[in-house]
Amino acid sequence: MANVTIWNEFIHERSDDACGVLCRKSYPKGIHAYLKKVLGASMQDAKFRAVSLDMPENGLPDKVLDSTDVLIWWGHMAHDKVPDALVDKIQRRVLAGMGLIVLHSGHMSKIFRRMLGTSGTLLWREIGEKERVWTADPSHPIAVGVPASFPIEHTEMYGEPFGLPDDAHVVFISWYAGGNVFRSGVTLQRGAGKVFYFAPGHETLPIYHDKNVQRVIANGIRWATPVNGVGPSPSCLHETEPTESVK
Amino acid sequence: MANVTIWNEFIHERSDDACGVLCRKSYPKGIHAYLKKVLGASMQDAKFRAVSLDMPENGLPDKVLDSTDVLIWWGHMAHDKVPDALVDKIQRRVLAGMGLIVLHSGHMSKIFRRMLGTSGTLLWREIGEKERVWTADPSHPIAVGVPASFPIEHTEMYGEPFGLPDDAHVVFISWYAGGNVFRSGVTLQRGAGKVFYFAPGHETLPIYHDKNVQRVIANGIRWATPVNGVGPSPSCLHETEPTESVK
Amino acid sequence: MANVTIWNEFIHERSDDACGVLCRKSYPKGIHAYLKKVLGASMQDAKFRAVSLDMPENGLPDKVLDSTDVLIWWGHMAHDKVPDALVDKIQRRVLAGMGLIVLHSGHMSKIFRRMLGTSGTLLWREIGEKERVWTADPSHPIAVGVPASFPIEHTEMYGEPFGLPDDAHVVFISWYAGGNVFRSGVTLQRGAGKVFYFAPGHETLPIYHDKNVQRVIANGIRWATPVNGVGPSPSCLHETEPTESVK
Amino acid sequence: MANVTIWNEFIHERSDDACGVLCRKSYPKGIHAYLKKVLGASMQDAKFRAVSLDMPENGLPDKVLDSTDVLIWWGHMAHDKVPDALVDKIQRRVLAGMGLIVLHSGHMSKIFRRMLGTSGTLLWREIGEKERVWTADPSHPIAVGVPASFPIEHTEMYGEPFGLPDDAHVVFISWYAGGNVFRSGVTLQRGAGKVFYFAPGHETLPIYHDKNVQRVIANGIRWATPVNGVGPSPSCLHETEPTESVK
Repeated sequence: MANVTIWNEFIHERSDDACGVLCRKSYPKGIHAYLKKVLGASMQDAKFRAVSLDMPENGLPDKVLDSTDVLIWWGHMAHDKVPDALVDKIQRRVLAGMGLIVLHSGHMSKIFRRMLGTSGTLLWREIGEKERVWTADPSHPIAVGVPASFPIEHTEMYGEPFGLPDDAHVVFISWYAGGNVFRSGVTLQRGAGKVFYFAPGHETLPIYHDKNVQRVIANGIRWATPVNGVGPSPSCLHETEPTESVK
Repeated sequence: MANVTIWNEFIHERSDDACGVLCRKSYPKGIHAYLKKVLGASMQDAKFRAVSLDMPENGLPDKVLDSTDVLIWWGHMAHDKVPDALVDKIQRRVLAGMGLIVLHSGHMSKIFRRMLGTSGTLLWREIGEKERVWTADPSHPIAVGVPASFPIEHTEMYGEPFGLPDDAHVVFISWYAGGNVFRSGVTLQRGAGKVFYFAPGHETLPIYHDKNVQRVIANGIRWATPVNGVGPSPSCLHETEPTESVK
Repeated sequence: MANVTIWNEFIHERSDDACGVLCRKSYPKGIHAYLKKVLGASMQDAKFRAVSLDMPENGLPDKVLDSTDVLIWWGHMAHDKVPDALVDKIQRRVLAGMGLIVLHSGHMSKIFRRMLGTSGTLLWREIGEKERVWTADPSHPIAVGVPASFPIEHTEMYGEPFGLPDDAHVVFISWYAGGNVFRSGVTLQRGAGKVFYFAPGHETLPIYHDKNVQRVIANGIRWATPVNGVGPSPSCLHETEPTESVK
Repeated sequence: MANVTIWNEFIHERSDDACGVLCRKSYPKGIHAYLKKVLGASMQDAKFRAVSLDMPENGLPDKVLDSTDVLIWWGHMAHDKVPDALVDKIQRRVLAGMGLIVLHSGHMSKIFRRMLGTSGTLLWREIGEKERVWTADPSHPIAVGVPASFPIEHTEMYGEPFGLPDDAHVVFISWYAGGNVFRSGVTLQRGAGKVFYFAPGHETLPIYHDKNVQRVIANGIRWATPVNGVGPSPSCLHETEPTESVK
């Protein structure tokens, strides 16, 4: 039984402007609460918590983080509000085995860029155009039950070049009506931890209501769950005695 | 000065059917002769030979292969006519440092699949739709002078999933009007040899007349040229004496 | 329940010379029979078959290969006796999801080099020196229960450079008393299939009697077992109708 | 002509204890000054500056960093004295194309771990044992002119497991008399920048006096020099107009 914590900056959904109205239409209690509800209903093999930036210790006090097997991250306009000390802690826990799933605009979050070492930058455009997600690696566990391709009728475009390192394994590539392409689903291993980035998702468009998108995230949780639990953080070890006798 | 050999199966261009007529319209003396002409005119740092399957020893006798720094491969309907013994020789020379550039339908050639270890399979469709090639890694030497994206007005669609190994580095990703996407430019290292696959190209559509396509291939030749020449083929070595004294 | 087939060329063990006598001392009925016995005793989650080159259809008729989830390969002096057509079949099944575990001198087998695309070449020395196997990736499923390092008192040295492709993930690196090092345990993904190479093992030295070596191979079987079974071989698909309407 | 800046924390060499005395014996004016002298004497294709932590703006004011093509980093006991804001700047410049060479104990420097995303942790032991460096990829530009293996008579041991990401390309692997092994030379690409880590080197042992070690670092500089200069840092781009007309 994986303990999954869904972290959301939870700002758009409470703003007073037009965007806030639209956000609340798709996600009345926030994206994190919505994902907890729908994933919780479909996954008997996971327990979900939904937390947010405005909660004490930014929603991730040690007792929460230290009991998390897979952390889901949604952030957009408040990346810089996440303290570096928390990013350090999350990174250490990923290296020790915790899974990390970064959604949509989280490509510029501190924690994702920390795990990559690269920029995470991309092209973007917000005109509600059509996206088609292609499964580039049908054999990947995250692609189980996902069709060869599926449409998202209205999306924010994320396009190449995407600032990824060479070991980013491509699971999905997206096509956009406006002429762009994007490696929209990629996996990485960092220390003992599995990392999955999945681009579809938006604060106002109801993309997380899509059954294929939900399936991908559920598969991502199963894939990222540490098989042998989360171990100690890696540290330098002083091996004072040689294992073989030195002449 | 790189010695470049352009190999073409050279069958479509001489067929009696409607395809043959179209092929000859784009490439009167064959794709290999055309590439030799245009690349030779633009590259002062390379010498070109054009050879074909119907020539003695399938166009690649030892004296040709052994003096080739970069081999360009175009094949489509006669992959199985290339003898396995020749594929073995080409592979050994790539592992020793020769560059290999595989174009278009060469994704199913014996030599490309031999270098990959994977299937090289893909989706395809031939309705002359529009393609847009995106530069996914603008920092790659093969992308020098290539725009962020460029169109090919009429193309054969090649789509994901593409049977590539994990170390295929993505330089270009293509968008197709019909809704598909494809990692259309990828590089690999195999032994001392550099391998570049580039999808655009077709036997009847005049895609090699495109200036951006020509630039990518020229850049590919420069990138794949062995900096220190082609060395000996790797072989198992019997090191009879230990370098450190065994107690 | 994984169906595991252990393939052995089974020649050394039946030779009339001094080597044969030594082989039979360590492996009276052959390496394949020994591995079947010890792995079968420890793994309740797998069923084992032991086959050899001298059996009909080289031990791998379609009904055997097509019911194999993980294939273990041991060959040394008869690599060239394995027909290319059988190598083609095995490769196709690996790409479709079958796991492949290549042991020791199998680094020069046709099937391993086929899956790599590289040479598989290395240094070697046979003076019975000591080896120490280091776990370079303690978080890998193949390293579960394996110590930080373990000794093999008498071994054949395999040394760098090892002709591997860039996506070979390093799980174990070996130290040798004579001064050499070797990436002795590496994993690869090829299509849907997982591939594991493990260097320790020899025809006369009783290395497969070592409990750590047995554990690594058992872990390798579990890791390489296809989670969703073996699917169809990848093939090019003609998608005649575009998914998006072409203007 | 590459502009190379050698950064050294420059603390050991000025300490009052026994270590300081030994450091000054090997490197009277500091490791950075020594490397500048010997590399400058052998490389006509590079200009060298030597800077240190105690200089204004930690030795890397914008005018220095912004005119650096390759940055060499030596740090050990003062990693935490390097401001995060400087690490951010260096990372941005690497992503834009600057080469980065991290030496020895720099495996735990902020900038190296930032570029990796992983821990950079390892085993270590300091008994002055013998090391033998093996060239695992003889075809790599950094290995030009470097022997198959070379000894370092007295070294600090760095051992596996080494917390590296999967795309770390192995160029050198070291053997230690005490029974350990280590991926002592690895390359990475991060954005447009090339990164090389090389383990040999120590504050008191005169390892940078070794001709092979000097050659590896010189080769590393040539390999890491950006072919097309350092470009702008990657950033997210708002492409307001679609390249293809949206229906």
